[in-house]
Amino acid sequence: MANSKFEYVRNFEQADHLLPNTWIVVRIDGRGFTKMCARYGFEKPNDRRALDVMNAAAKAVVTDLPEIVIAYGVSDEYSFVFHKTCTLFERRESKLVSTIVSTFTANYVHKWSTYFPDMPLASPLPTFDGRAVCYPTVQNLRDYMSWRQADCHINNLYNTSFWALVKLGGQDNKEAEKTLAGTLAADKNEILFSKFKINYNNEPEIFRKGSVVFRDYELVEPESHNTTTESIDAISMPVEQSKSQAEKDKKRRAKARVVVEFLDIIKDEFWDKRPWILSNKPGKVPKEV
Amino acid sequence: MANSKFEYVRNFEQADHLLPNTWIVVRIDGRGFTKMCARYGFEKPNDRRALDVMNAAAKAVVTDLPEIVIAYGVSDEYSFVFHKTCTLFERRESKLVSTIVSTFTANYVHKWSTYFPDMPLASPLPTFDGRAVCYPTVQNLRDYMSWRQADCHINNLYNTSFWALVKLGGQDNKEAEKTLAGTLAADKNEILFSKFKINYNNEPEIFRKGSVVFRDYELVEPESHNTTTESIDAISMPVEQSKSQAEKDKKRRAKARVVVEFLDIIKDEFWDKRPWILSNKPGKVPKEV
Amino acid sequence: MANSKFEYVRNFEQADHLLPNTWIVVRIDGRGFTKMCARYGFEKPNDRRALDVMNAAAKAVVTDLPEIVIAYGVSDEYSFVFHKTCTLFERRESKLVSTIVSTFTANYVHKWSTYFPDMPLASPLPTFDGRAVCYPTVQNLRDYMSWRQADCHINNLYNTSFWALVKLGGQDNKEAEKTLAGTLAADKNEILFSKFKINYNNEPEIFRKGSVVFRDYELVEPESHNTTTESIDAISMPVEQSKSQAEKDKKRRAKARVVVEFLDIIKDEFWDKRPWILSNKPGKVPKEV
Amino acid sequence: MANSKFEYVRNFEQADHLLPNTWIVVRIDGRGFTKMCARYGFEKPNDRRALDVMNAAAKAVVTDLPEIVIAYGVSDEYSFVFHKTCTLFERRESKLVSTIVSTFTANYVHKWSTYFPDMPLASPLPTFDGRAVCYPTVQNLRDYMSWRQADCHINNLYNTSFWALVKLGGQDNKEAEKTLAGTLAADKNEILFSKFKINYNNEPEIFRKGSVVFRDYELVEPESHNTTTESIDAISMPVEQSKSQAEKDKKRRAKARVVVEFLDIIKDEFWDKRPWILSNKPGKVPKEV
Repeated sequence: MANSKFEYVRNFEQADHLLPNTWIVVRIDGRGFTKMCARYGFEKPNDRRALDVMNAAAKAVVTDLPEIVIAYGVSDEYSFVFHKTCTLFERRESKLVSTIVSTFTANYVHKWSTYFPDMPLASPLPTFDGRAVCYPTVQNLRDYMSWRQADCHINNLYNTSFWALVKLGGQDNKEAEKTLAGTLAADKNEILFSKFKINYNNEPEIFRKGSVVFRDYELVEPESHNTTTESIDAISMPVEQSKSQAEKDKKRRAKARVVVEFLDIIKDEFWDKRPWILSNKPGKVPKEV
Repeated sequence: MANSKFEYVRNFEQADHLLPNTWIVVRIDGRGFTKMCARYGFEKPNDRRALDVMNAAAKAVVTDLPEIVIAYGVSDEYSFVFHKTCTLFERRESKLVSTIVSTFTANYVHKWSTYFPDMPLASPLPTFDGRAVCYPTVQNLRDYMSWRQADCHINNLYNTSFWALVKLGGQDNKEAEKTLAGTLAADKNEILFSKFKINYNNEPEIFRKGSVVFRDYELVEPESHNTTTESIDAISMPVEQSKSQAEKDKKRRAKARVVVEFLDIIKDEFWDKRPWILSNKPGKVPKEV
Repeated sequence: MANSKFEYVRNFEQADHLLPNTWIVVRIDGRGFTKMCARYGFEKPNDRRALDVMNAAAKAVVTDLPEIVIAYGVSDEYSFVFHKTCTLFERRESKLVSTIVSTFTANYVHKWSTYFPDMPLASPLPTFDGRAVCYPTVQNLRDYMSWRQADCHINNLYNTSFWALVKLGGQDNKEAEKTLAGTLAADKNEILFSKFKINYNNEPEIFRKGSVVFRDYELVEPESHNTTTESIDAISMPVEQSKSQAEKDKKRRAKARVVVEFLDIIKDEFWDKRPWILSNKPGKVPKEV
Repeated sequence: MANSKFEYVRNFEQADHLLPNTWIVVRIDGRGFTKMCARYGFEKPNDRRALDVMNAAAKAVVTDLPEIVIAYGVSDEYSFVFHKTCTLFERRESKLVSTIVSTFTANYVHKWSTYFPDMPLASPLPTFDGRAVCYPTVQNLRDYMSWRQADCHINNLYNTSFWALVKLGGQDNKEAEKTLAGTLAADKNEILFSKFKINYNNEPEIFRKGSVVFRDYELVEPESHNTTTESIDAISMPVEQSKSQAEKDKKRRAKARVVVEFLDIIKDEFWDKRPWILSNKPGKVPKEV
């Protein structure tokens, strides 16, 4: 049975290589998570176990794919950032997106029982969709990350206020919505504090800031290094490294701990202290204590 | 914290709507399955349990997404076909591919222990990548399906012969390769029969033909219907159905059993007897016995 | 001066191959033709010379590119159709669009003085933009062509009525607009006839139907041939012709006259009598008289 | 004749917006210019009239489209650069490419007789194809420009040597090719000088460097300005200008002379002295003398 007469169908596949020298963000979102929340009784406004399984899955993705320099998660979404010099899968969009979605999903399902030992998963299982977006400059990338974290803050302040009104204040959903309609951040802080003695700033950072996943090296004093945003933007193509240097980098990356922290990524400080994230040059692995 | 100054980053997302009125095939492939085979001791040349978990995952995908009219799987790959009139997710490529990859992966991981009760999954977990390809005509689509099934046949005949030489014939891998180099199908059949008394045609159909997943209705006598390939190609856009008709179709689809069978999909017979696959009009649900 | 260190920039070019086995329509539109009309005093509602130079340019395009099977023009726009088996420029979108736009523009500018001998062109020169769209089936393609011709009819009936009211009826532009607001085709016909003794059906066909450009062969009696729409849709890939057949076809195409006619292309008759347009098999060259 | 039933065909047009915040280079190339050279007797290795008509057409394009910040031409090709903040035509690729190709072609054909008064154009007319490529950083863009200019140098040195050997040295084409095979730049310089008393560096700059087209303002002393490459890369999106500033910029651009010069664009000097090219902020219009 010769296969040759059918093989012409391969020519229908279209190339989908993402523009070189741009930061690739793959964002995944939970599909139908409102129903998931209801089915598995997620706590409102935040369920720590649900965030923990998201973070565990994200950590596995970052560990498996060393080309990812940072990831940021909030609620049922996660953004993974490939360095602009990344050439994984020849930068083919479908391969990058599907690999991340699949690795994330596999780990989410597999680790579920660790965080929800009493609630076995049943059909329909939790699933995620994904998409890739390219950002040409560090500024664009950081604005993307800031956008997601600002969104986290806005939503969490709203949700914290809403559920306080409902759970502690005895309002029903419609009343709570009405109470919050048109309020600014300061108003919500005031409502939380005056009515419920809740100081929003004392809420857990994982809820207020979301989760940041990255390889951890020794922090750098901002003034002591010179990897500026500008010099990173000026990188025009994958630098030809000596093979031995590439090997060294690989080993260092493999050695580095992948951590999940709850930090401000809008301000410069986070990036200045961790220049390896944008430069993609591994930092100094901290001595084990 | 106003989010508006960051929101411009949304404009970097590019549209990826697939061409209307074309058949969309999403094919997924296991990532690094050679290592998977070794790690979990898959039997050679075919491991029935491994195929069964693939088929169970594929069945879940087809059940979850009624827009899929047929799926075909072999080894660690599966192709899912959306009807050309499908408008799911506005035909956005990333959404379609990532949803299928995620749903497949979730089910594969979740159902694994059913088929491999003694071999718990461990990191790195099984994952899949995916891609979408559009085919303009029924002929192109059927040629794609034939291509995959012909590939299944060619590979399985080779692998069956190869492992017979190794396992039963006492050759090592290099010797077996050499024995088979340049042989035609007839030669391989002859080797199997003369040396090992194996009649290839008696090998299990799941190995020889791969697995076909579809909604099952009452078979149709080819001469009694008139949904020809040509009339399907002539469909130019989603037909405006009355709402009640759409509702009826939906219910019928929901009632239909999704089956996994091992059939020849190269010849016309399969398609002629199951006109609902290409027409996307649900058939008659068989009476339960 | 070694060039190699700069050559990496070639990798930024993205593939833009159009989906195989689909009809490619390249439509071009005049840029800023409202101003052109004013500057060169085009007659209202239609300027025959302006249409003639469009048609001459389109004829040159079709003559230069034998892969074009038909073109249709109205006002300052023209649509060129490549057969679905066309492999010109490997179906690269930019090459196809830019070649047509450039060839059309070159001929428009070069032939201008033939039709407007007393009005030399001056800056800014007439220019055109273009885009490609793929249609998977004959029905889609014919619906596209019908769309353009129906548009021609609707606009021309409106414009004919409008300018009759202005030029013959003494209304100013606003009054004429108001008179026509909400009128149906029948109303406009009635206005033309009752007020101005104009029978719209006697208006020149070039204005009412637009212009169709194609290679002319002997017309075929619809019942005598069997190149149905369906059989054309079923063509899955460029048929492997014998070299001698391809050569014969090429010669026949070169011999055929490229004609500009003003015909109904919405009804089947046009297509049935000229099966070579959709089949891409040259017809019989008429005997010269 | 209702047009609505055909209008669905509009949905087949695919979006082709180029990635924001990237430099867009549209390069056009003459189609079949080897034949053009022969037909119109272009002089070898360079024909000044042929370059002049190219430059005149390019100048018209840059004048018509103020969004173009620089253009570079050599032989029968020209590259036009849109600033990375450009939003013309919503950055739609087809519109940008086709508009440039059409404007260039119209001017080339229209101005031809100025430069070739004794050689009227005849069919097939000169035409050009085009394509767009995006570059994320100033370094990528400058490397692209350097690539083209280095190519110009390499080709022109070869061609100058080749035609010297043929025209002055009495070699035939094959002999000349053989003489030059494997030679380095220094060897070619030596051949030109020792055999033909030609000092390559005294060849006209238009042949050795190609042509650069840009808006001319007062040159800037590199140390006096601070528009560095890095600060330009850091621009993340179209800066919201006050309307009055935008109007002022527009007027200044309109006032600026578009010039064609033959300069080195590989070294920094060109760019440092003309910061307006990369910053897109109009410079100081020189006082008229």
